[in-house]
Parts: sequence; structure tokens; C-alpha cells
Amino acid sequence: MSAPIVTLTSDFGSGPFAGIMKGVILGICPAARLIDISHHIPPQEVREAAVVIEQAMGVFPSGTVHLAVVDPGVGTGRRAIAISALGCLFVGPDNGLFTPVLLADPRAKTVKLSNDKYFRHPVSATFHGRDVFAPVAAHLAAGVELGVLGGEVSDPVLLEWQAPHEEEGRLVGQVASVDRFGNIATTLERHRVEEFLAGRPAEIVMGPLTLKGISQAYGDVPAGAPVALYNSMDRLELALYMGDLFHRLGLNLEGVLALKVHLKAQE
Amino acid sequence: MSAPIVTLTSDFGSGPFAGIMKGVILGICPAARLIDISHHIPPQEVREAAVVIEQAMGVFPSGTVHLAVVDPGVGTGRRAIAISALGCLFVGPDNGLFTPVLLADPRAKTVKLSNDKYFRHPVSATFHGRDVFAPVAAHLAAGVELGVLGGEVSDPVLLEWQAPHEEEGRLVGQVASVDRFGNIATTLERHRVEEFLAGRPAEIVMGPLTLKGISQAYGDVPAGAPVALYNSMDRLELALYMGDLFHRLGLNLEGVLALKVHLKAQE
Amino acid sequence: MSAPIVTLTSDFGSGPFAGIMKGVILGICPAARLIDISHHIPPQEVREAAVVIEQAMGVFPSGTVHLAVVDPGVGTGRRAIAISALGCLFVGPDNGLFTPVLLADPRAKTVKLSNDKYFRHPVSATFHGRDVFAPVAAHLAAGVELGVLGGEVSDPVLLEWQAPHEEEGRLVGQVASVDRFGNIATTLERHRVEEFLAGRPAEIVMGPLTLKGISQAYGDVPAGAPVALYNSMDRLELALYMGDLFHRLGLNLEGVLALKVHLKAQE
Repeated sequence: MSAPIVTLTSDFGSGPFAGIMKGVILGICPAARLIDISHHIPPQEVREAAVVIEQAMGVFPSGTVHLAVVDPGVGTGRRAIAISALGCLFVGPDNGLFTPVLLADPRAKTVKLSNDKYFRHPVSATFHGRDVFAPVAAHLAAGVELGVLGGEVSDPVLLEWQAPHEEEGRLVGQVASVDRFGNIATTLERHRVEEFLAGRPAEIVMGPLTLKGISQAYGDVPAGAPVALYNSMDRLELALYMGDLFHRLGLNLEGVLALKVHLKAQE
Repeated sequence: MSAPIVTLTSDFGSGPFAGIMKGVILGICPAARLIDISHHIPPQEVREAAVVIEQAMGVFPSGTVHLAVVDPGVGTGRRAIAISALGCLFVGPDNGLFTPVLLADPRAKTVKLSNDKYFRHPVSATFHGRDVFAPVAAHLAAGVELGVLGGEVSDPVLLEWQAPHEEEGRLVGQVASVDRFGNIATTLERHRVEEFLAGRPAEIVMGPLTLKGISQAYGDVPAGAPVALYNSMDRLELALYMGDLFHRLGLNLEGVLALKVHLKAQE
Repeated sequence: MSAPIVTLTSDFGSGPFAGIMKGVILGICPAARLIDISHHIPPQEVREAAVVIEQAMGVFPSGTVHLAVVDPGVGTGRRAIAISALGCLFVGPDNGLFTPVLLADPRAKTVKLSNDKYFRHPVSATFHGRDVFAPVAAHLAAGVELGVLGGEVSDPVLLEWQAPHEEEGRLVGQVASVDRFGNIATTLERHRVEEFLAGRPAEIVMGPLTLKGISQAYGDVPAGAPVALYNSMDRLELALYMGDLFHRLGLNLEGVLALKVHLKAQE
């Protein structure tokens, strides 16, 4: 058996907290391979973290333990959970972080972390990443069974995760995320878009922006021009070739994340 | 024996220097597990690095080699040292970086790195992280004895590390650090605070801020309200629930780090 | 044999893309040691990435696979390549990223990545890091031969990589990079400078700045004063001791990168 993989996602930024979680994990499971997904989720932005987990969850080998700590409710009554889904394990607070995992696997099994034998003691009020989630992830990586961690949970928290829908002859999605280059990913999946268009050319409207056609690559349009294409998640993405669409729109992140994306066939 | 762990702490930021140190380490000790604590210590802020080392030092398994490079004196006469303390090894410049380690272990043993057999050659004037500290850390991880690196040092540099003290019926500490969320950690340890209060309710004054009571969790107060609680280091922390206390104070980092924290019993 | 090392360099920033590439690599080559060089290359700055690769390429053990993805042309016709050079392997887009590698090893062998058996499918239009470069790097780390990846390429893209030259009794180089501390590295190598000076004291002119002498260490001048010294790459570097020369110059990054550096003997 190859060494167990533990991935880490958090809003801890550049400080020492992620490294401290790794120290805890290696103390329990010295063989663990530790892979950072991102520690730069905007502070306490559970939805952003869920989008990141959605991007990573299909890429890692089966058996991977995915640890995610974006936890505005730390120290309050919110539950801590572990999930077995998609051939992998997920550990973190029960606040909707794992919505895409739970939606993607109808046979997902969720347990509440209540057996404090698998915690680090004393458990602080402010850093469950170190004291609850990292040790539980390490024990799972070391082979502990999900069932011993606590009782099954039938109602894990789910974020409102809006699926694209048809409305007055248009396919309507929304902005999913904005990357460092200012490219804007939408929730519109390729297979849904292609089914909707049935070979007709596309017209896409997002806020003040109207775009015609879906390109194969950024470079299919002149530098500085807007372009629509399928991104690495096979979702429709809007961008400026060699430019930054997010800044061009002149909205803040919240404003952009609230935008609807309307797709219709060109007339 | 499980693979040796080497942690890395520096002010190198996002550039390639941390990765370059890792290349040197793997060339000497291919089995080393390399764990980043933080490379985003503010440039040349030795005290900030010492606070980070204090947070990490108790969490990693015994035998871990902690490499830290925040080194404004690189290329001048400052000594390079390695320390055996707390069951672990520490390698870096002799500028106070390891003050909390040396204070925590009265039996700490410090040697001056003078045996250049364990350096990378030629030794540059500007990057001892690559040429001195990384190779020495790698040799220690590979099993080299501390004593062969150089002679013992009896007077390693210590920062002024102010311990909390009582003054006019109050317990007086100071700000230790500010995290990414704007939460402000103090030097006041829980056991010291609880001993001082002896069950009486607390009143805390820090600059313009006065707070009553010590909470169990951020969420014990309304969103946006100030809260005092014990942080993951079991020290008193001041914060705004769902807010950013550092920015609310309107001071720069230097100003906040200079603040005293006064704790007294409510009257 | 020790575990194969794969380094990663990109302009992906703090998001999940680097972690996602690691998931792909571990799925193909579970034993790979994954080392980040930097993911904070300024977006699409191929030249900056080439400078970083130049710094890292000599430090890692032979056999290391260096994966680099700064790829403005992703999804267009630009070639994807792998190079065997300097005892290591390099994988990335054919856009000049590996110029210093190709210049340093006249026996470098380059192949075009055309055998899609070694890709991840389906291959997206926007994320060849995940779908082409990471899987190819992983297969190379796992022992696949370069030759099976595709046919040899005789004309890999080379950036204009200006070598220092003599002009009117002066040695003329240019700015190579600016680090986080505002220190400015030049292209002038120590051996070239020492040969040129032949023991005479140096005078260095860069834009508005004139400096006399080359120091051993930053601390050889008073705090705040400008200093010239050889950096960790053994190239001439200009800096302010305990200060930030880049900001002092008052130019943007592009302006500083365009500066010439003139060295002559003091009169």
C-alpha cells in the first residue's frame, strides 16, 4: 500500500497554523503525504472553500483524506463531521463546506465527531483545526474506521447550491468563482450548454457584458478582447485574453459573485 | 524509524528561496519530510519569527529539526548556531530567533556552526539559508551529532521576552501577535490569569478598548462585538466576532504590538 | 533508489491549481516527492519564471523532474515539451521558460509531447498543467523514457537572454530580478566582474544610482545606505542595507527590469 494522502484546505493564510496542523498529523500518522490545496480561502468564506473542494475532489487517488477548515463557528455548538464519499474521506466542520461532495455521492456516509479519544487534548476553544480535525484526519489516514469516530448524521448542513436552469428560452447559471487572473468561472457545465444549444451559436450575457460564440482557447480572440470558453472544470468561463475581466467589470468580488449568466442561441 | 522531519520558517515570502533550501536538504538527506511553518515572517522581524517558533515547537514529534532563517545580519559576524532542546533540534542565526526555545528548556545545548565540512560550498555572503543552515539541518536530520558541528556556546542571543507581571493590583501583559483575521493574541497565559482572578470576573483594558468577562468562544457575543477568550496557545486573545479588531483599532502593526494589556477584577 | 523528486513552478498563485496538479502526479507516481519552487510568478511572466528556474536548476539532486507552467498560450498551437539536460528533466510549454537550461547544457535533448497516452483525459483547453504537464512529469518520475513521449525538437523557443558585454571601457549588464526585500539582482557574474576589474576598485551606475566598491555583506555599510555585493547566485546585487532599494528608486517593476547596469573601474 502506498502512503496515505492527506490534503489540507483552510482560510489560515500565510501564518503557521497550516504547518502546526501538519505537525499534529505527522505525530499520529508519520507516513502521511501532506498536500496543500489552498490556505488562502478568504477568511470564513465557506462557499469559496466548497468551490475549491469541488475542484480538487475528483483529482486525488481514492483513499485520500481531505481535511478542510473554514470554520466561523469554531467553539460554538456547530458539529464536527467526517464523510465517506466518492471513495475518499472528508473531515471538517458541519457548515456546508462539503456540499458538492454530498451532492455528488448519494451514498455518502456522514458521522459526527464525538469520540474525543481521537482528539488532541486539551481541546482549545479557537483552534479545532489543530485539536479536532487534524488528529481525526490523521487517524483516518492511519486506518481508523469512520464508524468509531461517532454516530451517523442524517442531516449534514448543505449550502444552497444553485443548479443551472432554463427560463424563458435561456439557460441561466451564475458566477462560481474568480481566479487570480480575473477569469470568471460560471456554474454552466459543458454538457448542459451543448445540450441546450444543440449546435446553434451561443450568445452569453453577464451583467454589462455580451459575448457571441464559445472559443476553443483564450488566444482565439485578439489581446484584450472578451472570450468565453470551457475551463478546466468543463464549465463555461468568461475572460479577457491577456487581460483581467474581473477588474474590467469594476465590481467588487461580492458584486461579481452575485451576477447571473444568461445563455441563449444567437438570433 | 520513521523519516526525519525538517520544518522551515523564514522571511523569504513567495519566491524560490524556500524551495531552493529544500533542494539542498534533499540532496543531503533524501528521506527528509519537509514541512513549511511559514515563509511570510515580515522581512527581518526576528521577534515575529520567535513567536511563530514558540507556537510550533511543542506540536511536532520529538526528533524534528526546526530550521529558521530570519537573518538581517547575514554575512556579518553574527554566529550561526544549532540547539538541542525540548527533544528537538533547532538551526539558524544567533539573533534571538530561538529565545522561547532557550527559555523553555533550561538544559538546552547550543553549538556554534564552525565546522564547514557540513556547509555547501562556496558559501555566499547573502544566502546562508542555502549554504549553511539548510545543509546543517539536513546533516542533523540524517543523524549527524550536534557536537561535531562546532564548539558549545554559553551565551546565545536572547530577545527581551517580557513576562507578564503584577502592578498596582493589575496583571500586565502585552500584545504578542496579530493574525490574518485581525485577532490580537496577548502574552497572558490562562493559568496565570486564572490564578490572578481567583474566580472573580475579569475586566480587560487594551489601549482604547475595555472588555468585561472572558468568553468560551467567539460566537458568545453578537456579530461585530469585541470578545476576550483563550486562544489555541492558551493565552488571552482579544477579537471581534465576525470582524477584524486590528483594523478597528486604527493603529499600524507597530502601534498594536506596543500596546499593554491590563487585566483586573471587575469592581 | 530514493524517491523521485518533482519540483513545481507556476503563476497559479494561492489558489487550488498547484494542489490539483499534485493530486494528478500522486495518482500516477505515488512515491514522488513534491517540492514547490514558487507559484507566485507574476501572471504569464515567462521571463521571470526562467530566472527562477535558473536559480533552482543547479541545486536539486540529479534525476529531479522540474515541472514549470507559466503558459499564456495554453490551448493555442504552442508546443508542449520535455527536456533532458544537466542530469535532470524539465517539462512545460515551449515558450522560452527553459532558456537558461538550454543555454547551460549544449547537449540538452528536447522532445515534443505528442503521445497522448501520457496525458490525462479529456484534455481541457485551459488547464494543461493538470492534463498534460503534470501527468507527463509524473510518468517521467516513475521511470518512463523521454523518447516515448514524442519526436525530438531541434528548435525549442529561446528568450533573448542578454549576456553581459563590454562597451566603451565598461562592463554592461542588466537587472535580472527584484526580490521581496527590494534587492536588485543583476546579470553580472562575479567571475566576469573580477576579470574585468583585475583588482581595480569598482564604480557601478544603475539609473540614478552610483555606487563605489563591492562589499562583502549588507552590513558593511550604514543602515539605509546603498550597497553592492555578490548574491547567492554569485551575481552582482544592488541593495539598501536594512532598506528597500526598489521602492527608493520610485520606478515600477517594468521600469526597473529595463535598467542597464554599468560597471567601470574607479578613476
